[in-house]
Amino acid sequence: MMIVMRANATEEQIANVVEIVQANGLRAHLSQGEERTVIGVVGDGRPVPRDQFAFLPGIDRVVPISRPYKLASREFKPDNSIFKINGMRIGGDEIIIIAGPCSVESRSQLLETAYAVREAGAHALRGGAFKPRTSPYSFQGMGEAGLEILAEARQETGLPVVTEVMAPDQVPLVTRYADVLQIGARNMQNYSLLHVVGECQHPVLIKRGMSATIEELLMAGEYVLSHGNRRVILCERGIRTFETATRNTTDINSVPVLKSQTHLPVILDPSHSTGNWEYVTAIARAAIAAGADGLMIEVHPNPATALSDGGQSLKPERFAEMVAQVKAVAQAVGRSVAAAHQTVPPTAR
Amino acid sequence: MMIVMRANATEEQIANVVEIVQANGLRAHLSQGEERTVIGVVGDGRPVPRDQFAFLPGIDRVVPISRPYKLASREFKPDNSIFKINGMRIGGDEIIIIAGPCSVESRSQLLETAYAVREAGAHALRGGAFKPRTSPYSFQGMGEAGLEILAEARQETGLPVVTEVMAPDQVPLVTRYADVLQIGARNMQNYSLLHVVGECQHPVLIKRGMSATIEELLMAGEYVLSHGNRRVILCERGIRTFETATRNTTDINSVPVLKSQTHLPVILDPSHSTGNWEYVTAIARAAIAAGADGLMIEVHPNPATALSDGGQSLKPERFAEMVAQVKAVAQAVGRSVAAAHQTVPPTAR
Amino acid sequence: MMIVMRANATEEQIANVVEIVQANGLRAHLSQGEERTVIGVVGDGRPVPRDQFAFLPGIDRVVPISRPYKLASREFKPDNSIFKINGMRIGGDEIIIIAGPCSVESRSQLLETAYAVREAGAHALRGGAFKPRTSPYSFQGMGEAGLEILAEARQETGLPVVTEVMAPDQVPLVTRYADVLQIGARNMQNYSLLHVVGECQHPVLIKRGMSATIEELLMAGEYVLSHGNRRVILCERGIRTFETATRNTTDINSVPVLKSQTHLPVILDPSHSTGNWEYVTAIARAAIAAGADGLMIEVHPNPATALSDGGQSLKPERFAEMVAQVKAVAQAVGRSVAAAHQTVPPTAR
Amino acid sequence: MMIVMRANATEEQIANVVEIVQANGLRAHLSQGEERTVIGVVGDGRPVPRDQFAFLPGIDRVVPISRPYKLASREFKPDNSIFKINGMRIGGDEIIIIAGPCSVESRSQLLETAYAVREAGAHALRGGAFKPRTSPYSFQGMGEAGLEILAEARQETGLPVVTEVMAPDQVPLVTRYADVLQIGARNMQNYSLLHVVGECQHPVLIKRGMSATIEELLMAGEYVLSHGNRRVILCERGIRTFETATRNTTDINSVPVLKSQTHLPVILDPSHSTGNWEYVTAIARAAIAAGADGLMIEVHPNPATALSDGGQSLKPERFAEMVAQVKAVAQAVGRSVAAAHQTVPPTAR
Repeated sequence: MMIVMRANATEEQIANVVEIVQANGLRAHLSQGEERTVIGVVGDGRPVPRDQFAFLPGIDRVVPISRPYKLASREFKPDNSIFKINGMRIGGDEIIIIAGPCSVESRSQLLETAYAVREAGAHALRGGAFKPRTSPYSFQGMGEAGLEILAEARQETGLPVVTEVMAPDQVPLVTRYADVLQIGARNMQNYSLLHVVGECQHPVLIKRGMSATIEELLMAGEYVLSHGNRRVILCERGIRTFETATRNTTDINSVPVLKSQTHLPVILDPSHSTGNWEYVTAIARAAIAAGADGLMIEVHPNPATALSDGGQSLKPERFAEMVAQVKAVAQAVGRSVAAAHQTVPPTAR
Repeated sequence: MMIVMRANATEEQIANVVEIVQANGLRAHLSQGEERTVIGVVGDGRPVPRDQFAFLPGIDRVVPISRPYKLASREFKPDNSIFKINGMRIGGDEIIIIAGPCSVESRSQLLETAYAVREAGAHALRGGAFKPRTSPYSFQGMGEAGLEILAEARQETGLPVVTEVMAPDQVPLVTRYADVLQIGARNMQNYSLLHVVGECQHPVLIKRGMSATIEELLMAGEYVLSHGNRRVILCERGIRTFETATRNTTDINSVPVLKSQTHLPVILDPSHSTGNWEYVTAIARAAIAAGADGLMIEVHPNPATALSDGGQSLKPERFAEMVAQVKAVAQAVGRSVAAAHQTVPPTAR
Repeated sequence: MMIVMRANATEEQIANVVEIVQANGLRAHLSQGEERTVIGVVGDGRPVPRDQFAFLPGIDRVVPISRPYKLASREFKPDNSIFKINGMRIGGDEIIIIAGPCSVESRSQLLETAYAVREAGAHALRGGAFKPRTSPYSFQGMGEAGLEILAEARQETGLPVVTEVMAPDQVPLVTRYADVLQIGARNMQNYSLLHVVGECQHPVLIKRGMSATIEELLMAGEYVLSHGNRRVILCERGIRTFETATRNTTDINSVPVLKSQTHLPVILDPSHSTGNWEYVTAIARAAIAAGADGLMIEVHPNPATALSDGGQSLKPERFAEMVAQVKAVAQAVGRSVAAAHQTVPPTAR
Repeated sequence: MMIVMRANATEEQIANVVEIVQANGLRAHLSQGEERTVIGVVGDGRPVPRDQFAFLPGIDRVVPISRPYKLASREFKPDNSIFKINGMRIGGDEIIIIAGPCSVESRSQLLETAYAVREAGAHALRGGAFKPRTSPYSFQGMGEAGLEILAEARQETGLPVVTEVMAPDQVPLVTRYADVLQIGARNMQNYSLLHVVGECQHPVLIKRGMSATIEELLMAGEYVLSHGNRRVILCERGIRTFETATRNTTDINSVPVLKSQTHLPVILDPSHSTGNWEYVTAIARAAIAAGADGLMIEVHPNPATALSDGGQSLKPERFAEMVAQVKAVAQAVGRSVAAAHQTVPPTAR
């Protein structure tokens, strides 16, 4: 942390800051420039609280130096975190694709989609049973009945299941059915929830909040890691900006930034980051070209009748075409899409 | 809802959209312009799902017409909602001020602050027992011990207590101690939580999410109202923008916009919306000048040692000066600050 | 400037940075923390270019310490800049109000408005003769004919004239007619234009760009000041954010921030910062409550027929009501609105 | 345009709006819903001014239906605009790469870079002679001497030259030396400048303003097209958002959105859109994967000594590696990078 004094700070004010720094068990290094003094605050490696100092007289600004996360950083763990999820391997050279409908709407809708996405090359199945909806009057998801359908689809297709958990007290229920617990964008800073999923053994997929910085996404990952769960996947899904031509703005920069800052796998969800099926394939290709480790795609057998997010869902045949294009781009950047999921007869699992 | 067709949409595509509109039990009105056709979709008053239509061939855009909230709107209830909270009346002509530390840190810190803010003219006491913190390594609040201290401070000073609840399963605990349940900015779209507080009898103060639109804030209010709880307070606390000179950008426009759209009381928190104690008084004055019904202010007896948000906290003497200035502005706009809380001996309550 | 090295930077990399710092005629101060080294770069007071260093191996970040502006800063000139513009005094305790239509549309429209705003208490007349319009098909302003009408209105009413100049080669023309040269938001970083107006003797009113930071607004002021023109007024007019309920987001925080950073007068334009006449009065009151030195307001005798920005224009009678309310708020914050312009018979001027 | 009436609008108010619509030579279509009336306004194809209506009593909102641009739209011209620039063909299947330093700093720096980028496969040379700089104290460019060096480099290497023009009165000078006139991001809404370049015969490259919407970028293109110049290239260069991990946020969505809305060539500048050389190659690959027609890249032989933007410049050898990677991605999406520029002996040109 660097404390920048005002140009007109008095010697007493500078001495006072130094004294308080030292009273906190930290060391102070003075740099006296022509215009102003800067005090470097050096600690023992733990993050130093900025707020205490901001208030002291004579201070202009407090500038953080250390990153506020540790377990999530590449400096802490230089190699990529690679882990297996029910047969799917994520974080290595092979790219994985998670696909499925926004919401579980019925047994037939989900099974039809699950077979279709497996056929097209998906490695895991997504689908929401609990849906965070802006309106209290919108479809809120099927709840546990939806989880049962997801488990049946896994049984039938062998695809591991990714589904959202919205509240700490839902975690025991959802872990009974799901392979990966998804933390939705609106809950990225729901610390009660992050705490609980950090204590369970299931892999966690954290979606970036729509106004969360990359650093805050890493801090959300750090929450989960710090409670003992090491299997965390980070997902860019678009941020909120002034641009209204698309629902969100895909922060494609976040892909190389995250890959340089963290060892955790990084995937991108172009369905939400564009909000428009017409742009999903182009942005899926871009994500892989930028270095993402995977994709999360909304697919619906009949988007026009979807109970949520139909406008951003691909039909199965377009999804298959997208997978083909993504494979070509993956090869161009020296990677490959993981082999299609092997059809395993339910009895053999 | 208006469906805007592409300029080159075919007659078949237009007929197809009309058919699907009607199949959904809605009526379609065609406006054929020189360049393109627009189809007005008319329903029975319930919100019409946009997503279903966005995908149909030949469609350029779908434009919503109705507001997605109803119970929160002035069209539904033209007069201001005014309600009492343990002696404090909010939503009428009189302005109320909620003040206290960011976090409850100790019995002495809280009691000292509670007496000081009551002395200076505050009408309610704020203080966090459960703290949503970006870092898992930061102080997370005192938990139930903090709630007990808050209840003691209320007992001592007579000030009603406003405190944050972070998770659905905390609601029963927090309602035992608090007078107003605060939903923090990071939980504004935590629908599980909004649902539960909507079912309880305590007034709810909802802070605007840092990237939530005004409409989304109203939708959060609608969630609570739709579950039966009619005592909802909305709080502007700054939004996230590109500007970095202040922690957040106070969206002062939200005050007159909210007051014209909703009957619910609207307050402003200049401590968070600026992030800097130096600007708090100026923005508190501006809030009242713009028409806010109240203020929420961080006050700490010794900001330099605060465990959280010290840099934006006022010392008690500055807070008293702020109250004096706010009173003058309130009068200038034809309102007044509510009378200071009467000291009620604990035994008389 | 502080150069933050990566945690794993080698001693050679650190030595190399120090060497290059010194080769640039600057001094380097090392702070070696537990985790990383920070190098303070100290110069002779002139801004140090950051870009040179960002590229060197082993560097994590470069953090600026000095502010990049000097002449505009309060550290350079602690007292408010106060100056006279054709009888109007700006920057002191008295608040001034600039009012008039968005565009000059005709002689009768402008004269009617000029008399009306003077009657209501305005101190200067605004009106655009050259209009920057998003669409090449929109009304682009009356050009020199509009300037002639503005000059006639000044002759008739005695009100000094504020009007926009859009290009360097328009400056000689506009200075023949106007009292204050306005730099529009879209031209705030048009450095060719800032350079030319910096060399002329007319006061300059700079509107903040819709995505300009407060620091960039101050840098635009510094451009003009650095070319010798000391009469610069800064104007907040709303920034572009994700919020769409209003055309722009009034950055009310910018008022106290600017007043603490600079000695230049600061005014606010609530017509543009809200984009909706219904909210103009509330935000005008807020601006004065927050400490602004003046207001800029769009007034049109018949907004429904205005050729531009009718939706955000006040009718003269509403403007008069706004002035009355602003006077009350000014008093509440220990200031006053300047006395109404004295009617001076044209012949006596 | 659709005029949405308030739920409580009276019949008189509705009739009044209809009357004014008709008085403007437009037709009004009424859709009466359960809750409110919507009035469709139909004209003769020219954009209808919204502002006139926003003010009328009883109106809730005015929603535009037509796009405000015409010549730039795919509806007007369905096929891609393809044009030649001194031997380089842009807008077709072949991708082009423009490369060079941010600023022309010296003859030797520019010639060295020009030869290096041609060797690596660039098709055109960029370099600024007039530099828009935030600080009046920064290097402002070499001016005409820089233009002469650019022309010499073209003579030597055969690469066409792209350089910025900052003011209308610079246009005649710059067109004497340059092949493509660049409009910088800060001047994207400098309408005086757009007007003048629209009247000249040189191709124009318009960089998106850092807070300009995609629609506003298209409107800037429309300005140039509407004055008769049909050779316009649009360039995404990152937008300003709350994220600070990178200098700007690359709006990768803008690539497929622009390609679907306009026939004009679309390129991307990852040097500015990331602000960090480490991320340039990843985002260059992503741009091509998303469908861009070209790239604009900053290259400097010695970034550590660059007078501007060194931190985002690639060294020539890294640039060559980037070109190789971009070629692979181009092939993966069914396109190719245009053949390297043929060395043409100066005498043969």
